[in-house]
Amino acid sequence: MKFCSHCATPVEVKTPEGDNRPRFVCPGCDTIFYQNPRIVAGTLPVYRNGDLHQILLCKRAIEPRKGYWTLPAGFMENGESTVQAAERETLEEANARVISQSAFTMISVPHINQVHLFYLADLPEPEFSSGSESLEVALFDEKDIPWKEIAFPTVARTLKHYFANQHDPQELQRCASSVIELDQALKKLEEEEKQRYKSANRQTS
Amino acid sequence: MKFCSHCATPVEVKTPEGDNRPRFVCPGCDTIFYQNPRIVAGTLPVYRNGDLHQILLCKRAIEPRKGYWTLPAGFMENGESTVQAAERETLEEANARVISQSAFTMISVPHINQVHLFYLADLPEPEFSSGSESLEVALFDEKDIPWKEIAFPTVARTLKHYFANQHDPQELQRCASSVIELDQALKKLEEEEKQRYKSANRQTS
Repeated sequence: MKFCSHCATPVEVKTPEGDNRPRFVCPGCDTIFYQNPRIVAGTLPVYRNGDLHQILLCKRAIEPRKGYWTLPAGFMENGESTVQAAERETLEEANARVISQSAFTMISVPHINQVHLFYLADLPEPEFSSGSESLEVALFDEKDIPWKEIAFPTVARTLKHYFANQHDPQELQRCASSVIELDQALKKLEEEEKQRYKSANRQTS
Repeated sequence: MKFCSHCATPVEVKTPEGDNRPRFVCPGCDTIFYQNPRIVAGTLPVYRNGDLHQILLCKRAIEPRKGYWTLPAGFMENGESTVQAAERETLEEANARVISQSAFTMISVPHINQVHLFYLADLPEPEFSSGSESLEVALFDEKDIPWKEIAFPTVARTLKHYFANQHDPQELQRCASSVIELDQALKKLEEEEKQRYKSANRQTS
Protein backbone atom coordinates (compact mmCIF):
# COMPACT_ATOMS: atom_id res chain seq x y z
CA MET A 1 0.00 0.00 0.00
CA LYS A 2 1.48 3.33 -1.09
CA PHE A 3 -1.41 5.78 -1.39
CA CYS A 4 -4.55 6.59 0.58
CA SER A 5 -7.53 5.06 -1.22
CA HIS A 6 -9.75 7.97 -0.07
CA CYS A 7 -7.61 11.01 -0.96
CA ALA A 8 -4.51 9.67 -2.85
CA THR A 9 -2.02 11.14 -0.32
CA PRO A 10 1.07 8.88 0.18
CA VAL A 11 0.43 6.81 3.33
CA GLU A 12 2.79 6.46 6.29
CA VAL A 13 3.41 3.43 8.50
CA LYS A 14 2.91 4.25 12.17
CA THR A 15 1.25 2.97 15.31
CA PRO A 16 -1.95 4.99 15.85
CA GLU A 17 -2.64 6.41 19.30
CA GLY A 18 -4.25 3.77 21.52
CA ASP A 19 -3.16 0.99 19.16
CA ASN A 20 -0.28 -1.44 19.67
CA ARG A 21 0.87 -2.27 16.17
CA PRO A 22 1.95 -0.38 13.03
CA ARG A 23 -0.72 0.43 10.41
CA PHE A 24 -0.89 2.30 7.14
CA VAL A 25 -2.15 5.77 8.09
CA CYS A 26 -3.01 8.70 5.80
CA PRO A 27 -1.44 11.98 6.98
CA GLY A 28 -3.89 13.85 4.71
CA CYS A 29 -7.28 12.58 5.94
CA ASP A 30 -6.19 10.56 9.03
CA THR A 31 -7.74 7.31 7.76
CA ILE A 32 -6.23 4.19 9.32
CA PHE A 33 -6.06 1.15 7.03
CA TYR A 34 -6.42 -2.14 8.88
CA GLN A 35 -5.41 -5.39 7.20
CA ASN A 36 -7.05 -8.55 8.48
CA PRO A 37 -7.08 -12.28 7.70
CA ARG A 38 -9.48 -13.62 5.11
CA ILE A 39 -11.75 -16.63 5.39
CA VAL A 40 -11.55 -19.41 2.83
CA ALA A 41 -14.82 -21.35 3.10
CA GLY A 42 -15.58 -24.69 1.49
CA THR A 43 -17.27 -28.04 1.86
CA LEU A 44 -16.34 -31.68 2.21
CA PRO A 45 -19.09 -33.11 -0.07
CA VAL A 46 -19.94 -36.73 0.76
CA TYR A 47 -21.94 -38.92 -1.61
CA ARG A 48 -23.21 -42.08 0.12
CA ASN A 49 -23.01 -44.85 -2.42
CA GLY A 50 -24.30 -47.81 -0.42
CA ASP A 51 -21.67 -48.44 2.26
CA LEU A 52 -19.10 -46.38 0.43
CA HIS A 53 -18.57 -42.76 1.36
CA GLN A 54 -17.28 -40.98 -1.71
CA ILE A 55 -15.74 -37.51 -1.58
CA LEU A 56 -15.99 -34.87 -4.30
CA LEU A 57 -12.64 -33.33 -5.24
CA CYS A 58 -11.76 -30.68 -7.84
CA LYS A 59 -8.56 -30.51 -9.87
CA ARG A 60 -7.45 -26.87 -9.84
CA ALA A 61 -7.42 -25.02 -13.17
CA ILE A 62 -5.73 -21.96 -11.66
CA GLU A 63 -2.68 -21.09 -9.56
CA PRO A 64 -1.70 -21.60 -6.83
CA ARG A 65 -1.33 -25.37 -7.13
CA LYS A 66 -2.79 -25.72 -10.62
CA GLY A 67 -3.31 -29.39 -11.51
CA TYR A 68 -3.57 -30.48 -7.86
CA TRP A 69 -6.74 -31.75 -6.17
CA THR A 70 -8.71 -29.77 -3.60
CA LEU A 71 -12.02 -29.63 -1.81
CA PRO A 72 -14.28 -26.95 -3.33
CA ALA A 73 -13.51 -23.72 -1.43
CA GLY A 74 -12.76 -20.04 -1.93
CA PHE A 75 -12.73 -16.59 -0.39
CA MET A 76 -15.84 -15.65 1.57
CA GLU A 77 -17.46 -12.51 0.12
CA ASN A 78 -19.00 -9.51 1.85
CA GLY A 79 -22.73 -9.87 2.46
CA GLU A 80 -22.85 -13.62 2.88
CA SER A 81 -22.63 -16.09 5.78
CA THR A 82 -19.92 -18.73 6.14
CA VAL A 83 -22.35 -21.48 5.07
CA GLN A 84 -23.52 -19.50 2.07
CA ALA A 85 -19.89 -18.94 1.04
CA ALA A 86 -19.06 -22.64 1.38
CA GLU A 87 -22.10 -23.74 -0.67
CA ARG A 88 -21.60 -21.02 -3.31
CA GLU A 89 -17.98 -22.06 -3.84
CA THR A 90 -19.07 -25.69 -4.20
CA LEU A 91 -21.59 -24.68 -6.84
CA GLU A 92 -19.09 -22.45 -8.70
CA GLU A 93 -16.18 -24.90 -8.73
CA ALA A 94 -18.01 -28.21 -9.11
CA ASN A 95 -21.55 -27.32 -10.24
CA ALA A 96 -22.67 -29.38 -7.23
CA ARG A 97 -25.56 -28.53 -4.94
CA VAL A 98 -24.73 -29.75 -1.43
CA ILE A 99 -26.54 -29.65 1.89
CA SER A 100 -24.24 -28.47 4.68
CA GLN A 101 -24.42 -30.43 7.93
CA SER A 102 -22.02 -28.73 10.33
CA ALA A 103 -18.75 -26.86 10.52
CA PHE A 104 -16.12 -29.58 10.43
CA THR A 105 -12.62 -28.10 10.50
CA MET A 106 -11.37 -24.55 11.01
CA ILE A 107 -7.64 -24.18 10.54
CA SER A 108 -5.74 -20.92 10.88
CA VAL A 109 -2.91 -20.37 8.41
CA PRO A 110 -1.26 -17.26 9.90
CA HIS A 111 1.71 -17.07 7.54
CA ILE A 112 -0.66 -16.31 4.67
CA ASN A 113 -3.28 -14.48 6.79
CA GLN A 114 -6.08 -16.95 6.13
CA VAL A 115 -8.54 -19.07 8.08
CA HIS A 116 -9.73 -22.20 6.25
CA LEU A 117 -13.19 -23.39 7.19
CA PHE A 118 -14.77 -26.59 5.86
CA TYR A 119 -18.36 -27.72 6.30
CA LEU A 120 -19.29 -31.37 6.23
CA ALA A 121 -21.93 -31.61 3.49
CA ASP A 122 -24.18 -34.15 1.80
CA LEU A 123 -24.10 -34.50 -1.95
CA PRO A 124 -27.55 -36.05 -2.44
CA GLU A 125 -27.02 -36.99 -6.10
CA PRO A 126 -23.80 -37.74 -8.02
CA GLU A 127 -24.36 -34.69 -10.19
CA PHE A 128 -21.44 -32.34 -10.81
CA SER A 129 -19.17 -30.95 -13.52
CA SER A 130 -16.13 -28.70 -13.81
CA GLY A 131 -16.63 -25.03 -13.02
CA SER A 132 -14.32 -22.45 -14.63
CA GLU A 133 -11.69 -22.85 -11.89
CA SER A 134 -11.58 -26.66 -12.16
CA LEU A 135 -9.98 -28.88 -14.81
CA GLU A 136 -11.84 -31.95 -13.57
CA VAL A 137 -14.26 -32.91 -10.80
CA ALA A 138 -14.61 -36.47 -9.51
CA LEU A 139 -15.84 -38.69 -6.67
CA PHE A 140 -13.16 -40.61 -4.78
CA ASP A 141 -13.34 -43.65 -2.52
CA GLU A 142 -11.03 -43.44 0.48
CA LYS A 143 -8.55 -45.85 -1.12
CA ASP A 144 -8.31 -43.74 -4.29
CA ILE A 145 -7.71 -40.31 -2.74
CA PRO A 146 -4.66 -38.86 -4.55
CA TRP A 147 -2.80 -38.01 -1.32
CA LYS A 148 0.38 -36.95 -3.10
CA GLU A 149 -1.54 -34.57 -5.36
CA ILE A 150 -3.61 -32.73 -2.76
CA ALA A 151 -3.28 -28.98 -3.25
CA PHE A 152 -3.13 -27.70 0.34
CA PRO A 153 -2.24 -29.12 3.78
CA THR A 154 -5.54 -27.90 5.24
CA VAL A 155 -7.42 -29.99 2.64
CA ALA A 156 -5.34 -33.10 3.40
CA ARG A 157 -5.89 -32.57 7.11
CA THR A 158 -9.65 -32.19 6.65
CA LEU A 159 -9.85 -35.37 4.53
CA LYS A 160 -7.80 -37.38 7.06
CA HIS A 161 -10.01 -36.10 9.84
CA TYR A 162 -13.08 -37.28 7.95
CA PHE A 163 -11.79 -40.77 7.15
CA ALA A 164 -10.67 -41.26 10.75
CA ASN A 165 -14.26 -40.68 11.91
CA GLN A 166 -16.51 -41.55 8.98
CA HIS A 167 -18.14 -44.63 10.50
CA ASP A 168 -19.02 -42.97 13.79
CA PRO A 169 -21.81 -40.41 13.29
CA GLN A 170 -21.50 -39.20 16.88
CA GLU A 171 -17.79 -38.66 16.47
CA LEU A 172 -18.37 -36.80 13.20
CA GLN A 173 -20.85 -34.60 15.04
CA ARG A 174 -18.23 -33.85 17.67
CA CYS A 175 -15.57 -33.11 15.11
CA ALA A 176 -16.27 -29.41 14.97
CA SER A 177 -14.81 -29.20 18.46
CA SER A 178 -11.53 -30.40 17.00
CA VAL A 179 -10.90 -26.82 15.96
CA ILE A 180 -8.48 -26.34 18.81
CA GLU A 181 -6.67 -29.54 18.10
CA LEU A 182 -6.21 -28.51 14.50
CA ASP A 183 -5.11 -25.08 15.52
CA GLN A 184 -2.44 -26.59 17.71
CA ALA A 185 -1.37 -28.77 14.80
CA LEU A 186 -0.60 -25.57 12.96
CA LYS A 187 3.15 -25.59 13.46
CA LYS A 188 3.34 -28.99 11.80
CA LEU A 189 1.19 -27.82 8.87
CA GLU A 190 3.29 -24.71 8.43
CA GLU A 191 6.46 -26.80 8.50
CA GLU A 192 5.05 -29.12 5.82
CA GLU A 193 4.03 -26.16 3.69
CA LYS A 194 7.44 -24.48 4.04
CA GLN A 195 9.17 -27.73 3.05
CA ARG A 196 6.92 -28.04 0.02
CA TYR A 197 7.58 -24.48 -1.10
CA LYS A 198 11.31 -25.00 -0.62
CA SER A 199 11.18 -28.16 -2.66
CA ALA A 200 9.03 -26.47 -5.35
CA ASN A 201 11.53 -23.61 -5.53
CA ARG A 202 14.41 -26.03 -5.91
CA GLN A 203 12.59 -27.67 -8.80
CA THR A 204 11.98 -24.41 -10.64
CA SER A 205 15.36 -22.75 -10.01
CA MET B 1 -12.56 3.57 -2.15
CA LYS B 2 -11.70 6.31 -4.68
CA PHE B 3 -8.03 5.85 -5.59
CA CYS B 4 -5.71 2.92 -6.28
CA SER B 5 -3.55 2.33 -3.20
CA HIS B 6 -0.64 1.22 -5.41
CA CYS B 7 -0.50 3.99 -8.04
CA ALA B 8 -3.09 6.65 -6.95
CA THR B 9 -5.11 6.40 -10.20
CA PRO B 10 -8.89 6.86 -9.62
CA VAL B 11 -10.43 3.38 -9.44
CA GLU B 12 -13.41 2.12 -11.43
CA VAL B 13 -16.13 -0.30 -10.37
CA LYS B 14 -16.45 -3.21 -12.77
CA THR B 15 -16.73 -6.99 -12.89
CA PRO B 16 -13.31 -8.41 -13.80
CA GLU B 17 -13.08 -11.06 -16.51
CA GLY B 18 -13.85 -14.50 -15.06
CA ASP B 19 -15.41 -12.95 -11.96
CA ASN B 20 -19.12 -12.66 -11.18
CA ARG B 21 -19.38 -9.55 -9.04
CA PRO B 22 -18.33 -5.89 -9.24
CA ARG B 23 -14.97 -4.92 -7.69
CA PHE B 24 -12.87 -1.81 -7.43
CA VAL B 25 -10.37 -2.08 -10.29
CA CYS B 26 -7.48 0.25 -11.16
CA PRO B 27 -7.40 1.17 -14.87
CA GLY B 28 -3.77 2.31 -14.40
CA CYS B 29 -2.10 -0.82 -12.99
CA ASP B 30 -4.96 -3.35 -13.34
CA THR B 31 -4.99 -4.18 -9.61
CA ILE B 32 -8.29 -5.67 -8.42
CA PHE B 33 -9.28 -4.73 -4.85
CA TYR B 34 -11.24 -7.45 -3.09
CA GLN B 35 -13.19 -6.66 0.05
CA ASN B 36 -13.88 -9.53 2.42
CA PRO B 37 -15.52 -10.13 5.80
CA ARG B 38 -13.48 -9.74 8.95
CA ILE B 39 -13.32 -12.12 11.90
CA VAL B 40 -14.12 -10.87 15.40
CA ALA B 41 -12.57 -13.40 17.81
CA GLY B 42 -13.17 -13.59 21.54
CA THR B 43 -13.66 -15.84 24.52
CA LEU B 44 -16.38 -16.83 26.94
CA PRO B 45 -14.22 -16.89 30.11
CA VAL B 46 -15.66 -19.16 32.82
CA TYR B 47 -14.45 -19.02 36.42
CA ARG B 48 -15.61 -22.08 38.40
CA ASN B 49 -16.39 -20.85 41.88
CA GLY B 50 -17.49 -24.07 43.61
CA ASP B 51 -20.75 -25.04 41.88
CA LEU B 52 -21.18 -21.59 40.40
CA HIS B 53 -20.04 -20.90 36.88
CA GLN B 54 -19.20 -17.21 36.67
CA ILE B 55 -18.67 -15.39 33.38
CA LEU B 56 -16.29 -12.51 32.79
CA LEU B 57 -17.87 -9.54 31.03
CA CYS B 58 -16.41 -6.17 30.01
CA LYS B 59 -18.26 -2.84 29.96
CA ARG B 60 -17.28 -1.11 26.72
CA ALA B 61 -15.32 2.16 26.98
CA ILE B 62 -15.59 2.81 23.24
CA GLU B 63 -18.24 3.02 20.52
CA PRO B 64 -20.13 1.19 19.19
CA ARG B 65 -22.29 0.37 22.24
CA LYS B 66 -20.18 2.27 24.77
CA GLY B 67 -21.40 1.52 28.32
CA TYR B 68 -22.86 -1.86 27.34
CA TRP B 69 -21.50 -5.24 28.45
CA THR B 70 -19.71 -7.65 26.13
CA LEU B 71 -17.54 -10.75 26.10
CA PRO B 72 -13.89 -9.83 25.45
CA ALA B 73 -13.42 -9.90 21.65
CA GLY B 74 -12.01 -7.92 18.77
CA PHE B 75 -10.72 -8.02 15.20
CA MET B 76 -8.35 -10.87 14.40
CA GLU B 77 -5.01 -9.52 13.16
CA ASN B 78 -2.76 -10.73 10.35
CA GLY B 79 -0.14 -13.24 11.47
CA GLU B 80 -2.11 -14.84 14.27
CA SER B 81 -4.44 -17.83 14.64
CA THR B 82 -8.08 -17.58 15.71
CA VAL B 83 -7.21 -18.88 19.20
CA GLN B 84 -4.33 -16.45 19.56
CA ALA B 85 -6.63 -13.59 18.53
CA ALA B 86 -9.30 -14.62 21.05
CA GLU B 87 -6.81 -14.93 23.92
CA ARG B 88 -4.99 -11.70 22.99
CA GLU B 89 -8.26 -9.75 22.98
CA THR B 90 -9.14 -11.21 26.40
CA LEU B 91 -5.78 -10.08 27.74
CA GLU B 92 -6.07 -6.59 26.19
CA GLU B 93 -9.64 -5.87 27.24
CA ALA B 94 -9.77 -7.59 30.62
CA ASN B 95 -6.13 -8.22 31.61
CA ALA B 96 -7.22 -11.83 32.03
CA ARG B 97 -5.17 -14.89 31.04
CA VAL B 98 -7.53 -17.63 29.91
CA ILE B 99 -7.06 -21.18 28.63
CA SER B 100 -9.18 -21.82 25.52
CA GLN B 101 -11.05 -25.13 25.44
CA SER B 102 -12.84 -25.23 22.10
CA ALA B 103 -14.55 -23.10 19.51
CA PHE B 104 -18.03 -22.54 20.90
CA THR B 105 -20.09 -20.32 18.61
CA MET B 106 -19.42 -18.96 15.15
CA ILE B 107 -22.06 -16.53 13.94
CA SER B 108 -22.02 -14.76 10.59
CA VAL B 109 -23.23 -11.17 10.58
CA PRO B 110 -23.41 -10.51 6.82
CA HIS B 111 -24.98 -7.04 6.98
CA ILE B 112 -21.79 -5.72 8.60
CA ASN B 113 -19.42 -8.17 6.85
CA GLN B 114 -18.24 -9.88 10.02
CA VAL B 115 -17.97 -13.39 11.45
CA HIS B 116 -18.06 -13.55 15.25
CA LEU B 117 -16.18 -16.48 16.79
CA PHE B 118 -16.16 -17.25 20.51
CA TYR B 119 -13.99 -19.83 22.28
CA LEU B 120 -15.10 -21.44 25.50
CA ALA B 121 -12.27 -20.70 27.94
CA ASP B 122 -11.26 -21.35 31.53
CA LEU B 123 -10.35 -18.43 33.74
CA PRO B 124 -8.22 -20.34 36.30
CA GLU B 125 -7.99 -17.46 38.81
CA PRO B 126 -10.38 -14.53 39.41
CA GLU B 127 -7.67 -12.12 38.31
CA PHE B 128 -8.60 -9.34 35.87
CA SER B 129 -8.88 -5.57 35.48
CA SER B 130 -10.06 -3.04 32.91
CA GLY B 131 -8.01 -2.74 29.73
CA SER B 132 -8.04 0.55 27.82
CA GLU B 133 -11.21 -0.38 25.89
CA SER B 134 -13.16 -1.34 29.03
CA LEU B 135 -14.77 0.86 31.68
CA GLU B 136 -15.24 -2.06 34.05
CA VAL B 137 -14.66 -5.82 34.09
CA ALA B 138 -16.59 -8.19 36.36
CA LEU B 139 -17.63 -11.79 37.01
CA PHE B 140 -21.35 -12.53 36.73
CA ASP B 141 -23.47 -15.39 38.01
CA GLU B 142 -26.15 -16.51 35.55
CA LYS B 143 -28.88 -14.75 37.55
CA ASP B 144 -27.00 -11.42 37.47
CA ILE B 145 -26.20 -11.24 33.74
CA PRO B 146 -27.33 -7.75 32.61
CA TRP B 147 -29.37 -9.08 29.66
CA LYS B 148 -30.83 -5.68 28.78
CA GLU B 149 -27.37 -4.11 28.66
CA ILE B 150 -25.57 -6.65 26.47
CA ALA B 151 -23.75 -4.87 23.64
CA PHE B 152 -24.32 -7.23 20.69
CA PRO B 153 -26.84 -9.96 19.73
CA THR B 154 -24.01 -12.43 19.03
CA VAL B 155 -22.78 -12.01 22.62
CA ALA B 156 -26.28 -12.53 24.07
CA ARG B 157 -26.71 -15.58 21.88
CA THR B 158 -23.37 -17.05 22.97
CA LEU B 159 -24.19 -16.50 26.66
CA LYS B 160 -27.64 -18.09 26.30
CA HIS B 161 -26.10 -21.04 24.51
CA TYR B 162 -23.66 -21.50 27.38
CA PHE B 163 -26.23 -21.33 30.17
CA ALA B 164 -28.52 -23.76 28.34
CA ASN B 165 -25.72 -26.35 28.36
CA GLN B 166 -23.43 -25.48 31.28
CA HIS B 167 -24.21 -28.52 33.43
CA ASP B 168 -23.71 -31.04 30.65
CA PRO B 169 -20.01 -31.29 29.71
CA GLN B 170 -20.78 -33.57 26.77
CA GLU B 171 -23.31 -31.12 25.43
CA LEU B 172 -20.86 -28.25 25.85
CA GLN B 173 -18.34 -30.28 23.91
CA ARG B 174 -20.88 -30.73 21.12
CA CYS B 175 -21.79 -27.08 21.06
CA ALA B 176 -19.27 -26.15 18.44
CA SER B 177 -21.41 -28.07 15.98
CA SER B 178 -24.18 -25.60 16.69
CA VAL B 179 -22.56 -23.30 14.18
CA ILE B 180 -25.15 -24.17 11.57
CA GLU B 181 -28.03 -23.69 13.93
CA LEU B 182 -26.74 -20.27 14.88
CA ASP B 183 -26.19 -19.41 11.29
CA GLN B 184 -29.80 -20.22 10.54
CA ALA B 185 -30.86 -18.05 13.48
CA LEU B 186 -29.20 -15.18 11.69
CA LYS B 187 -32.35 -13.62 10.28
CA LYS B 188 -33.75 -13.25 13.77
CA LEU B 189 -30.51 -11.69 15.04
CA GLU B 190 -30.41 -9.27 12.13
CA GLU B 191 -34.01 -8.31 12.75
CA GLU B 192 -33.26 -7.63 16.43
CA GLU B 193 -30.24 -5.57 15.50
CA LYS B 194 -32.15 -3.53 12.91
CA GLN B 195 -34.90 -2.83 15.44
CA ARG B 196 -32.31 -1.71 17.98
CA TYR B 197 -30.62 0.63 15.51
CA LYS B 198 -33.99 2.04 14.47
CA SER B 199 -34.89 2.65 18.08
CA ALA B 200 -31.44 4.19 18.79
CA ASN B 201 -31.87 6.52 15.81
CA ARG B 202 -35.29 7.61 17.02
CA GLN B 203 -33.79 8.47 20.40
CA THR B 204 -31.01 10.61 18.94
CA SER B 205 -33.04 12.42 16.27
